[in-house]
This record gives sequence, structure tokens and C-alpha cells, in this order.
Amino acid sequence: MSFEKINFKEKLSKFSKYWEPKVIAKLNDYEFKLVKIKDEFIWHHHEETDEAFIVLDGVMYIEFEDRTIKLSEGEMLVVPKRTKHRPYADKETHIMIVE
Amino acid sequence: MSFEKINFKEKLSKFSKYWEPKVIAKLNDYEFKLVKIKDEFIWHHHEETDEAFIVLDGVMYIEFEDRTIKLSEGEMLVVPKRTKHRPYADKETHIMIVE
Repeated sequence: MSFEKINFKEKLSKFSKYWEPKVIAKLNDYEFKLVKIKDEFIWHHHEETDEAFIVLDGVMYIEFEDRTIKLSEGEMLVVPKRTKHRPYADKETHIMIVE
Repeated sequence: MSFEKINFKEKLSKFSKYWEPKVIAKLNDYEFKLVKIKDEFIWHHHEETDEAFIVLDGVMYIEFEDRTIKLSEGEMLVVPKRTKHRPYADKETHIMIVE
């Protein structure tokens, strides 16, 4: 068997740049990515897929056109496809994205 | 907008039975499920989809025909489709499954 378990902290220790997602696992045609975030990302949306945000460590915000949702460790949000959003974090925060 | 954030602990506090996954979010045609597990599940496999296990709290084991993988909090494993496996946990453990 070629599959191995993934330890989030161990993977996160291997990179430091913000907003550069690293693919850590694949599930059929979906990707699990770890990302370190801080400050603002750009406004964007995804035409083809929903996007799940799972906070592993820290606090992030996802700004939408009509509200902002705060996500802390142990919380997740699925952003539906074609929904404009802008993620940001005041301090370094570690998250997993599935899309 | 109808989407809301999900707090894992809050969702987990609402049920107590083991091996009864609760769907907490959908991403396109995929489901995120929370499960409390203890003791053994049955040997099984999934014909159509890979299955991701993410440990939120506790320790679980996934037994395969040729080895057993231990997963602790902050670790995940994707079990490829058509791979026979048997999950178990010695103590109550909280996990998320994506499939």
C-alpha cells in the first residue's frame, strides 16, 4: 500500500510562506490543502466548486458582500461556488482547505 | 445566504451514540460527517469512493490486511476505494469523515 497518514503540524512545520496552499492529500478528484494565512487575500470566487475552510489553529475571517464570518479553531465553513469572498486573518492562522 | 459555520464541538455535543455519522456539511456531492467511535467497527470497503478520516479528539486505529495505522488528534488518512479496512478505538474518539 502506498498511502500514509498525514500529521498536520508536521506538514505545517515544513513551510512558512502565507497564502501558498500545499496539497497534502487527495480524495478521488478533490484536494486537501494546508495553508498558513495572515493579512488579507484578494476578493475572488470559484466558478466550478464549493470550497471548505477548516481552522486548525488561530482565527480567520471570511468576508462576503453582506457579512463577515469569524472562524476559530475547530470550526469550518463551506463557501458555495460562485460566491464572492475574501479571507483574512489578523495573526498567523493555520487552515485546511478542501476543494 | 443560507450557509453557516460549523463548530465541531458544538455538533458533537448533540449526540452520543457510537458509529452513527452525522452529516454536518456538503461540498458539491461530498459529505463531511462527524462520528463518535469506540471499540470495533466491521471490516468493509467502499466500491465507489476514497474515504478520508480526520481525528479531532482521541486516538483511532485503522486495520488493513497487511498493517494497522494509528491516527491521533491532528492526523488524517485517506483510504483508497476498494481497500478493505476496519476502524477501531480503545476509548471514545471523535473523528470527521469525508466521502
